[in-house]
Amino acid sequence: MSEDPKIVSQKTIFKAKLFEVKELKIERAGKQVVHHTAQRHPTVSVFPLSDDYELYLVSQYRYMLGKRTIEAMAGFVNKGEAPLAAAKRELEEETGLTASHWDELTEIELAASVFKAESTLFLAKGLIQGVQKQDEGEDIVVNKIKLDDVVNKVLRGEINHSATVIGILFLDKLRREGKL
Amino acid sequence: MSEDPKIVSQKTIFKAKLFEVKELKIERAGKQVVHHTAQRHPTVSVFPLSDDYELYLVSQYRYMLGKRTIEAMAGFVNKGEAPLAAAKRELEEETGLTASHWDELTEIELAASVFKAESTLFLAKGLIQGVQKQDEGEDIVVNKIKLDDVVNKVLRGEINHSATVIGILFLDKLRREGKL
Repeated sequence: MSEDPKIVSQKTIFKAKLFEVKELKIERAGKQVVHHTAQRHPTVSVFPLSDDYELYLVSQYRYMLGKRTIEAMAGFVNKGEAPLAAAKRELEEETGLTASHWDELTEIELAASVFKAESTLFLAKGLIQGVQKQDEGEDIVVNKIKLDDVVNKVLRGEINHSATVIGILFLDKLRREGKL
Repeated sequence: MSEDPKIVSQKTIFKAKLFEVKELKIERAGKQVVHHTAQRHPTVSVFPLSDDYELYLVSQYRYMLGKRTIEAMAGFVNKGEAPLAAAKRELEEETGLTASHWDELTEIELAASVFKAESTLFLAKGLIQGVQKQDEGEDIVVNKIKLDDVVNKVLRGEINHSATVIGILFLDKLRREGKL
């Protein structure tokens, strides 16, 4: 087998608020090629589950997709912030909830070559309702839906946001195995 | 509730081989804001399953992640090509396999705001081995792994590529329900 390809050099050629486009010079099998990637800052996705196995999800209009979606609440991890701290902050901002029990479900890479974007998925249990701090004008609706119904929405393709699908299928799997 | 935000205008400000950066002008609650997104061409991901419930996955070194990953075989949909045709082409190119039975598992959006990238996931069954056409120099290894072992790799976080995780958890769910 040939040697693994490696990044010889890289430079940022475009910087948006939430991602950067990088030009990578790659050495593969003795040859150099140029590859462009877009790298997004890391995010967290939060799956708050009530004692009655109801999941809190958010619904909002996504203009890029041209439709209202159902998604896990998610947000960017601030520089220097631990993913768990970001998850706690995000949950409280979006719903006013705090949780006594947190578990990392998994860490995913949304893609592997053209785009780079990682998200850490957290389960939040032992929920306590506080005061919702959502920004005015934010058109985000929080719904509480039975886990079984949410799983069916995934299987029917009504929920197709990748991190959301993954978290829901993890919860379903854990529940069937008596680990939730 | 306020009106849904809408895209007033958009222009491409950077064009790479496999994605574009677009500058969108968004109208939200009477105000205009500028939002940059990176939009990748659509892909297909293929999950070829043997009669013995073994899944074909590919392993390759991903320099952007700095490690060798296990992923579903995937590829870009050519302009004008149907996703199913792209899936058949991709399967044959990567493995030399053809399949007598195809099912669409689901269609996912990798993200919802900053990045746009959709992938259609296909199950391929009734596999027949032909001749592998993989390009010389491609450092891609095809592995056949028992579905149960693959599911455990997902749960342990050893597989964390999002489309791959989703396909595997779909297959696990369908198998438990006797639908696979």
